[in-house]
Amino acid sequence: MSVMIDEIAEQPAAVEATWRSLRRERDALRRLLAGRRHVLFVARGSSDNAAVYGRYLLESLGLLQAALAAPSIATHYGRRLELSDTCVVSVSQSGETEEIVRTQTWAADCGAATVAVTNDAGSSLADAADIALVTQAGLERAVPATKSYTTQLVAMIALAAAAAPDPGPLERAVERAPAQMQTLIDDRLGIDRAVEVLAGSEQTLVAGRGLALGTAMEVALKLEETCLRPVRGLSYADLRHGPIAVVEAGLATILVAAQDGPMLTGMTELGMDLRSRGAAVIAVGGDAEFVAGAGVAVPGPDLPETVAPLGLVLPGQLIVESLAGHLGLDPDTPRGLAKVTMTDPTTGGHE
Amino acid sequence: MSVMIDEIAEQPAAVEATWRSLRRERDALRRLLAGRRHVLFVARGSSDNAAVYGRYLLESLGLLQAALAAPSIATHYGRRLELSDTCVVSVSQSGETEEIVRTQTWAADCGAATVAVTNDAGSSLADAADIALVTQAGLERAVPATKSYTTQLVAMIALAAAAAPDPGPLERAVERAPAQMQTLIDDRLGIDRAVEVLAGSEQTLVAGRGLALGTAMEVALKLEETCLRPVRGLSYADLRHGPIAVVEAGLATILVAAQDGPMLTGMTELGMDLRSRGAAVIAVGGDAEFVAGAGVAVPGPDLPETVAPLGLVLPGQLIVESLAGHLGLDPDTPRGLAKVTMTDPTTGGHE
Repeated sequence: MSVMIDEIAEQPAAVEATWRSLRRERDALRRLLAGRRHVLFVARGSSDNAAVYGRYLLESLGLLQAALAAPSIATHYGRRLELSDTCVVSVSQSGETEEIVRTQTWAADCGAATVAVTNDAGSSLADAADIALVTQAGLERAVPATKSYTTQLVAMIALAAAAAPDPGPLERAVERAPAQMQTLIDDRLGIDRAVEVLAGSEQTLVAGRGLALGTAMEVALKLEETCLRPVRGLSYADLRHGPIAVVEAGLATILVAAQDGPMLTGMTELGMDLRSRGAAVIAVGGDAEFVAGAGVAVPGPDLPETVAPLGLVLPGQLIVESLAGHLGLDPDTPRGLAKVTMTDPTTGGHE
Repeated sequence: MSVMIDEIAEQPAAVEATWRSLRRERDALRRLLAGRRHVLFVARGSSDNAAVYGRYLLESLGLLQAALAAPSIATHYGRRLELSDTCVVSVSQSGETEEIVRTQTWAADCGAATVAVTNDAGSSLADAADIALVTQAGLERAVPATKSYTTQLVAMIALAAAAAPDPGPLERAVERAPAQMQTLIDDRLGIDRAVEVLAGSEQTLVAGRGLALGTAMEVALKLEETCLRPVRGLSYADLRHGPIAVVEAGLATILVAAQDGPMLTGMTELGMDLRSRGAAVIAVGGDAEFVAGAGVAVPGPDLPETVAPLGLVLPGQLIVESLAGHLGLDPDTPRGLAKVTMTDPTTGGHE
């Protein structure tokens, strides 16, 4: 048994505890966001993928313009921007990634309100932020982020709920997530078949769109880091715009979609297109039609598109954990990765 | 002779003509940007890579917060954001990509000022924008974007010059670019050796950072679309944060850097790290130290980091054009690609 599989199983409880804690921050977040129209996320790696979800959630439900920052403007170009109309949200499991901490400090100097999303209440990031959204993942021992990632998604939901004119449906949906996550972990439907397909393929491509794009990117990153294979995580739109040309027989693709929402039709058609090009299609989530066109169907959660990413990533994690074992790799300590990352080794940082 | 190589050679003149035309828009752009603190780019494919450059240039020289939009917020989620403090810059060679045109219309409805960067003065995009920055690339016949891409970079420079407190150095630097581009096209230094290395490798990775990140992404996209091989375009920072774990002997890497600027040290170290892992390193641009650590040195332009991307992409284009021939492919019409792209085939669009 890997530590990773234990931590995957801890997610329903961690998500529930995090929501119970962070929903109390709604009024404080609402005050902080008042009068600010823009949200800028600062993150790397898995946290960056959580921010991609946060960005779509804030724009589609919170009605705030949201985007991902380029930290090097702060850390390397040393430019000062006028950010008094912006809330900067820094996301880092450890709260000690130097680049993220420095960028948050820069943002505050530029007049931004700051929110830190971190798993450590005592971290530099939490300490310096106007509001710290501390995730309740507990200690994460395996290098691949699992429960720290899904609890970051909960922090994104807490932010969107604070910004949304009508947060009720979102809040009710997130409360249904832990039970749905538990079902996916218990049943493991389609996981073994998906692992077989991936093990027999040289190349993997993962695609999603809109609110599920961050999930696709996270599954791609996990596959690459943990199973050490070249994987592409792409948006539906970017794939359509060119790289679909390189799809040919033998490619394994993982398509991620919620069971509802405006992206489902396009993702279903993408699946059919990929199959017609000879690619093996593993469909994670979606509805009956989405699954009908796929070689392997891996059920997702019974949750609306807004919070579906809380559950949609679980099959991906289970696939990665199992595939690593299949390939003779240790999912807990993939080669070349440390738990607290340094973007620039020479400028210091925390290990 | 391919059409692509002819169009590569037309770039010095196209860039010069575009700058001559667009520098006249400075005052109009300045008025449009007045009081707006945010710039949001809307683009796909090569245009998206031009926008990545534009984003860094505007933040580092124009001192405006800049980011890339998620068009699906407009086209699929149908949300209205408050964008009266924002200038939305839509980038599309044809000016007819339906998704981009729709998103520009949405942005105007949300109160944004709109700038269209397109190669067709009569296009829907140019027609509907507050200001159209029409590139002077002329008709581009090969499917891979070359002169339409570098002239889009010129439009980014025109925007940054309008926003910058002190545009003089930027404007003088861009005027030196056409001659530098011509030298790279005439000399073709290092191109054949780079093609040999890439032809002998299954996997390719392209990396850059900051102002040169868009160049790295563009070279990766071109390699993938035109040479039909799986390629990853990654930022230095994202690579460091995880995927460097998958680097092993036999991987071919292309590193892109300007000859100066704050990214050069980190990119030089990245090259040494990749070599120590057994990867073949092709260094495009940089300084003597950057090149010393590489297996193949491909000179870049003698231009400051701010405008270096105008020249840095040329070796990449030359490599792609030559490699395609080497692999028995036609660089002008790669499989599966049409000149005007449709993100959503079922919702219509222009061919």
